[in-house]
Amino acid sequence: MDIITLAHGAGGRLTQKLIDNLFKKYLNNEYLAQGDDGAVLTIPKDKIVFSTDSFVVSPHFFPGGDIGKLAVYGTINDLAVMGAKPLYLSLGFILEEGLEIQELELIVQSIARACQETGVKIVTGDTKVVERGKGDKIYINTSGIGVINSSLLPSGRKASPGDKILVNGFLGDHGAAILASRENIQGEFVSDCAPLSELIELLLKNVPVHTLRDPSRGGIAATLNEIAKQSNVGIELWEEVIPVRREIRTLCGYLGLDPLALANEGKVIVILPEEAANDAIKLMKNHPLGKNAAIIGEVREVPEGTVYLKNNFGGERVVNMPLGENLPRIC
Amino acid sequence: MDIITLAHGAGGRLTQKLIDNLFKKYLNNEYLAQGDDGAVLTIPKDKIVFSTDSFVVSPHFFPGGDIGKLAVYGTINDLAVMGAKPLYLSLGFILEEGLEIQELELIVQSIARACQETGVKIVTGDTKVVERGKGDKIYINTSGIGVINSSLLPSGRKASPGDKILVNGFLGDHGAAILASRENIQGEFVSDCAPLSELIELLLKNVPVHTLRDPSRGGIAATLNEIAKQSNVGIELWEEVIPVRREIRTLCGYLGLDPLALANEGKVIVILPEEAANDAIKLMKNHPLGKNAAIIGEVREVPEGTVYLKNNFGGERVVNMPLGENLPRIC
Repeated sequence: MDIITLAHGAGGRLTQKLIDNLFKKYLNNEYLAQGDDGAVLTIPKDKIVFSTDSFVVSPHFFPGGDIGKLAVYGTINDLAVMGAKPLYLSLGFILEEGLEIQELELIVQSIARACQETGVKIVTGDTKVVERGKGDKIYINTSGIGVINSSLLPSGRKASPGDKILVNGFLGDHGAAILASRENIQGEFVSDCAPLSELIELLLKNVPVHTLRDPSRGGIAATLNEIAKQSNVGIELWEEVIPVRREIRTLCGYLGLDPLALANEGKVIVILPEEAANDAIKLMKNHPLGKNAAIIGEVREVPEGTVYLKNNFGGERVVNMPLGENLPRIC
Repeated sequence: MDIITLAHGAGGRLTQKLIDNLFKKYLNNEYLAQGDDGAVLTIPKDKIVFSTDSFVVSPHFFPGGDIGKLAVYGTINDLAVMGAKPLYLSLGFILEEGLEIQELELIVQSIARACQETGVKIVTGDTKVVERGKGDKIYINTSGIGVINSSLLPSGRKASPGDKILVNGFLGDHGAAILASRENIQGEFVSDCAPLSELIELLLKNVPVHTLRDPSRGGIAATLNEIAKQSNVGIELWEEVIPVRREIRTLCGYLGLDPLALANEGKVIVILPEEAANDAIKLMKNHPLGKNAAIIGEVREVPEGTVYLKNNFGGERVVNMPLGENLPRIC
């Protein structure tokens, strides 16, 4: 008998299968078929973006963030990578009987701070409570609406051969922080949880961006595989220049994990024409969230739908879409 | 130590307290302060409505519906009572490890049917999976966007002394169906789960509606108390004319429940000037979802913020906001 496994919710291959074989089968329309992180909706005379995300991260508090902050920034980032300026969020709580009000208050405070910092507003909400043992203290859904000001609509379908692939800093910080926190691993592992909307607005105003995507669940391994398939291109990554902190490389080495498959919550993949790449790097390096920005690879015509990693010694390996998630409930 | 109880999620007084003391404390803005079921958002040159609802109903399948259909109609109804034509929904799943794909498929089918019947589109989605024992098979969040065509913006703040209070049919059907299904009570108890958007559009086009509200969790007892407070008016109900099925009166009698506090999922409270009440009843009776429509009371100047029930023998009792919910996880 087929059952839902943790891997079905991990953003990898099995998630894709569930989407293709079940959700798309019954629910498909021109918006879902775009396959991006949110839907561009033509509301008479105006384009808005509408996106949704549920947050079930465990633990609820971790170095660098908590489920509340994550729920705000996560949906903001989904809107921002669609080219929208995030404006409005909805907030749906599923609370477990027995949750301490104090703990909920800390989370709500964190949500409020994240909203103030980014100028977005929670404009509607809902709360449900389930019995003890039918939840895990708190789950949060945020849905968001953003408006599109730019004529530039970045999309996973627009990566073109010759384009450079950029990222705004170190990869894997969020995944490592959750892992270390859960397993009581010593070390300075801090989530990169941050709102990308300002940095992205800067890029959209100044450089001809083709594709933007935040590599959260499944890391850049999942995100770049999605883009390679959406755009029908090959993606070549250069191992030596991919920014990953030394401690995270070590952690991944010990545990047999791939840092490229670790989640990020304050990173954006930027794909744009080669001639604009250096300008984009300069813009990012001048922003607090882009100090360690780097060009990490380029888009090729072939092999279509494939991501591969090259190193300076001529080594080459395919970077697969992660099957499931090493770390369930990462966000 | 203060802890979250089931009553905090039941739509009654403790929910209100949580909203006032916690969510509004930290998150308040001009949209949340409106206190309606969704937020009216001024997107340059156009007004849209954005609403969110999580669904945790147990059992997932019940006479007259299932969690999928409920998740679509529930959010559609929230948009419709705000005066909007529902257009777009988001869909967020929190699935428990071990859920049978077949069961999920039935639910997704039901969602698809509900969308087809109403012409709304799921335009973005998200799936998370939690460990066995950290959920209850499936929880669903739907957020929705609707557009406002009419210049009439119904609101809980617009009920005026002299207005009549109408409902489109029998009350308590959903609550009774869930209760009977959960407790294996024999009888013909079927949920009224239905989309109200068409019926409401008809009303908005033809009669000067002041207030619309779908009395779901907490029944009309909760909804009318909310409206009485929002509009600062008294609400008088007439016991003999409130449509409640005989079997449900009997069930409530046995169990000590108030049918006015039972949930509905296909009912709308309509408040409008006396001179338009008969036209509204006629319109409703000509619609499949309004065959048993009735005028059930009227708005008074005093006692402010209070709902009370009168009967033909001169009896009178206050209808309180339900404290918690007799039936947790009703939607």
